[in-house]
Amino acid sequence: MADKIYSEYPPPLSPEQEDYLVQTVKNWTIEHGLCVRPSTAIVSEEANPKNVLATNAPVTLFPSPFPKSCFEQARSLQQVYNELYAAIASDEQWLEEIMKELIEVDDFLANLWKIHLSVKEEGYVQDLTLGMFRSDYMLHTPEDSPPSLKQVEFNTISSSFGGLACLVAEMHTHLATFPSPEHPAAYPSHPLFSDSNDTSSIKSKGHPPHNAAVPTLTASLAAAHAAYGPSRSQPQLPTCILFLVQDTERNVFDQLALSTHLYDHHKIPSFRLPASRMLAYTSIPSKESNPSRPLIYTPPYSSSTQYEVTVVYFRALYTPTDYDTPTSWAARHHLERSAAIKCPSVLLQLSGSKKVQQVLTARPPDTDHLKAFLPHHSDEKLESMRTTFAPQYSLSTTNTADEPEGIRLALDEKTAANHVLKPQREGGGNNIYRTNIPPFLSSIPKEQWKQYILMELIHPPTEAKNTALRSDGQVASGNVISELGIFGTCLWKNTSGSTKPEILHNTEGGYLLRTKGKESDEGGVAAGFSSLDSVILYE
Amino acid sequence: MADKIYSEYPPPLSPEQEDYLVQTVKNWTIEHGLCVRPSTAIVSEEANPKNVLATNAPVTLFPSPFPKSCFEQARSLQQVYNELYAAIASDEQWLEEIMKELIEVDDFLANLWKIHLSVKEEGYVQDLTLGMFRSDYMLHTPEDSPPSLKQVEFNTISSSFGGLACLVAEMHTHLATFPSPEHPAAYPSHPLFSDSNDTSSIKSKGHPPHNAAVPTLTASLAAAHAAYGPSRSQPQLPTCILFLVQDTERNVFDQLALSTHLYDHHKIPSFRLPASRMLAYTSIPSKESNPSRPLIYTPPYSSSTQYEVTVVYFRALYTPTDYDTPTSWAARHHLERSAAIKCPSVLLQLSGSKKVQQVLTARPPDTDHLKAFLPHHSDEKLESMRTTFAPQYSLSTTNTADEPEGIRLALDEKTAANHVLKPQREGGGNNIYRTNIPPFLSSIPKEQWKQYILMELIHPPTEAKNTALRSDGQVASGNVISELGIFGTCLWKNTSGSTKPEILHNTEGGYLLRTKGKESDEGGVAAGFSSLDSVILYE
Repeated sequence: MADKIYSEYPPPLSPEQEDYLVQTVKNWTIEHGLCVRPSTAIVSEEANPKNVLATNAPVTLFPSPFPKSCFEQARSLQQVYNELYAAIASDEQWLEEIMKELIEVDDFLANLWKIHLSVKEEGYVQDLTLGMFRSDYMLHTPEDSPPSLKQVEFNTISSSFGGLACLVAEMHTHLATFPSPEHPAAYPSHPLFSDSNDTSSIKSKGHPPHNAAVPTLTASLAAAHAAYGPSRSQPQLPTCILFLVQDTERNVFDQLALSTHLYDHHKIPSFRLPASRMLAYTSIPSKESNPSRPLIYTPPYSSSTQYEVTVVYFRALYTPTDYDTPTSWAARHHLERSAAIKCPSVLLQLSGSKKVQQVLTARPPDTDHLKAFLPHHSDEKLESMRTTFAPQYSLSTTNTADEPEGIRLALDEKTAANHVLKPQREGGGNNIYRTNIPPFLSSIPKEQWKQYILMELIHPPTEAKNTALRSDGQVASGNVISELGIFGTCLWKNTSGSTKPEILHNTEGGYLLRTKGKESDEGGVAAGFSSLDSVILYE
Repeated sequence: MADKIYSEYPPPLSPEQEDYLVQTVKNWTIEHGLCVRPSTAIVSEEANPKNVLATNAPVTLFPSPFPKSCFEQARSLQQVYNELYAAIASDEQWLEEIMKELIEVDDFLANLWKIHLSVKEEGYVQDLTLGMFRSDYMLHTPEDSPPSLKQVEFNTISSSFGGLACLVAEMHTHLATFPSPEHPAAYPSHPLFSDSNDTSSIKSKGHPPHNAAVPTLTASLAAAHAAYGPSRSQPQLPTCILFLVQDTERNVFDQLALSTHLYDHHKIPSFRLPASRMLAYTSIPSKESNPSRPLIYTPPYSSSTQYEVTVVYFRALYTPTDYDTPTSWAARHHLERSAAIKCPSVLLQLSGSKKVQQVLTARPPDTDHLKAFLPHHSDEKLESMRTTFAPQYSLSTTNTADEPEGIRLALDEKTAANHVLKPQREGGGNNIYRTNIPPFLSSIPKEQWKQYILMELIHPPTEAKNTALRSDGQVASGNVISELGIFGTCLWKNTSGSTKPEILHNTEGGYLLRTKGKESDEGGVAAGFSSLDSVILYE
């Protein structure tokens, strides 16, 4: 049935219908802040010298169909995933074991690890950590079995698009229900747009589910802010949350959705600080004057007013290219040793490495990391989690006597045809697909193989199609691949000597669908369009 | 005291403070839809071929001080003003008397009047009229007396900026109170920004009053929609409100604020229709098939779905330049004869002429139009209204034997120095100021003098200053002149044979402050900046 749903969706548009839909979306996006700052490819710097212009975020004109059971499974696993990553980030020894060989080849991970060791030596002054996560999945639809979820990535830092994703769901709901759900003006009629009764072959609510990403993410910041407690400065200072942002951020309205909600609903002020100015505008008192190391923010525009930072929310310094000034690493170290709650800490960021994801796929009887990290969860729950793991393999030869399975699968052209080779290194290189894998591996020294992970290909619905309004106003239609992200948050406390986190706040809520134009059957993803989307669930 | 308030406001900004304030405003505006589409002077058509870009509406960085008593007087008069203009629009004979001599010289007014006569001959099929008004004032601060209000204009058609004005008040309130009213981050401290206690010399709430323009204006559309009653078509059609808009409208987000609120809070769908397409996409059944003349809207994108229009809300066809196609006048006639409630009718639009405003200033014992139109209101109320009239004079010589006072004042250089000569003609020409008046009048034939109205100059606070962020991102500071608009709405019924309207809905709510850079002491208004503003009230 899934095939039929994708092959007959979205409904075709006449030129007049497309005009109306595109015009409505152009206006709706700007009216509601579903915006980005345009790239210089869209508007040159000379044409926009004061950077005042905005344009719509790239969005699909229609929500994309998604099986309800898979969506619900993803939601039902999120709090367990949150707990899993809290446990991983709390187990320094386990992580060190995983990281050891990567650190040898990856400066970025090595630098992060060094920061952790340095702060550990000095002694951490904050035992709370906040995670604002997004677990990303693709729908796997092999010919012979029902659709299932496969996890692509678990984001432990700078999980973005919660703010804009809420607006996309709202916009698609508006388009599907205005002026009435029975006769929407913007969409041609289609079974997925009608709140189906029992006689219909497809069950659907007719519009995307409500997206609670903003309140969910914001509530976790508020929980961390409250858990921080009173100011540790003498005299006490007013407190705030700091959004650490990139110096040139085009996705600013996604972030503002959170800070605005944080203030409007929780009365917690937050400030945006570009990463390059972190050391200039924050300070930590000397050990002698205040050993508790509060992070003090002195706004550039008002040196007489100081704030104590309860939470540093990273929307920068997550990728190697963010560390582009001589003091970037010093800034990260500075934050890590402060009393501010980090979202995330260095260890939590490291827990999000692809390598960790691969190691977790190990199954009993070999190892059972899941059971070890989540002893209180039922086998059924852990098994449900395992079904979301795409098979993936290390190409390392370090810890094993036999030829590892990954290497065997990668070198045989027949099995390689169903795999993708992903570089382990953060922020580096492109994926190698299918039969390109064996010759590629042969072309590089064997010692470098461990930098890669081999992953079985996920087969998303081949017939999926959608139309997007890009930020330059171009309308692009075609075959697409979608990735579902589920947002979750976790606040926990680490007790000295224990590797078990004490969970204080653990929530699931909100989703992101990102839909990209398919460039080729190589699985490559086109720059043609990559859009924010929402789901229309079907049974 | 007023002088002192204006001379010490706004507080000076350091470069860092201005940077922060400007950056905050740039982001806040886009995040909240306080936007316009950029003019081609800001972004060329080639750089924006798909018209996707948006920029901040021009806004002041600070709210402008305004005496609380004057603000409250303006509010307290609004419902009386609403009633006055409902009465004027209901008294065809009185209006005809006023219009007679203008029609001779003004094609625009003549064409409107002809439409009324034509529909009157055929017979009106709708006895309800909706007015969405804005009464505009300037603060008059002559040296020797306390500040008072003087009415500049009473808008009876396309009263704009209610949508964006609400957002400006919200933004200024945010800037004045974030993160705390005691220590706002964006504004330097200033007595007007603190919720003053009794010991302070200036009383202020510290931030602008809430602006209720959107709910007020929207509620009147909803009241008219409800009063229209069920569909008059056979078979009945779903109903909607039509926003008649200009073909190239940059101020679209101001209008969307109303249509969005109308749908979200009243569940009433509305559609935008450019004036040039009015005849193509709306129709009125023939007399034989349906004599009640419902206005049928057939959306271009869905010819199978038709709607019956309950209210036509004019945000176009208000000015001569809007009638730029061969069928513009036919479109206006088409709407006027339909059963849709017009906001406004032709007669209501004509009631907003400058000439009517001038005639109303006639005082007893000469004439007492106010008392005649508003017999149930107290003399005190009418006197309060009269204090808002700036003295103004006809230069017509038609109805009087003596040399009229206006001509005497205009020709004497001494008295002319305190006046402005305004062309009566809609949408035409520039004002003539002060001592330029006598030579100007001498240079044109005496028969043309009646096209002008002489108005005593209003003296706004000379020390008023503000800083604006223009839509091109430039920051402009300097002396300013502000105009306060108060929004009001009125729905009434006209009974055949009676000149007295039956008022069904009469509300006041919301305000607009428009602040312009002062170019020179000639009273001319600079193109330098014209910004949306809000008020900070003082006592």
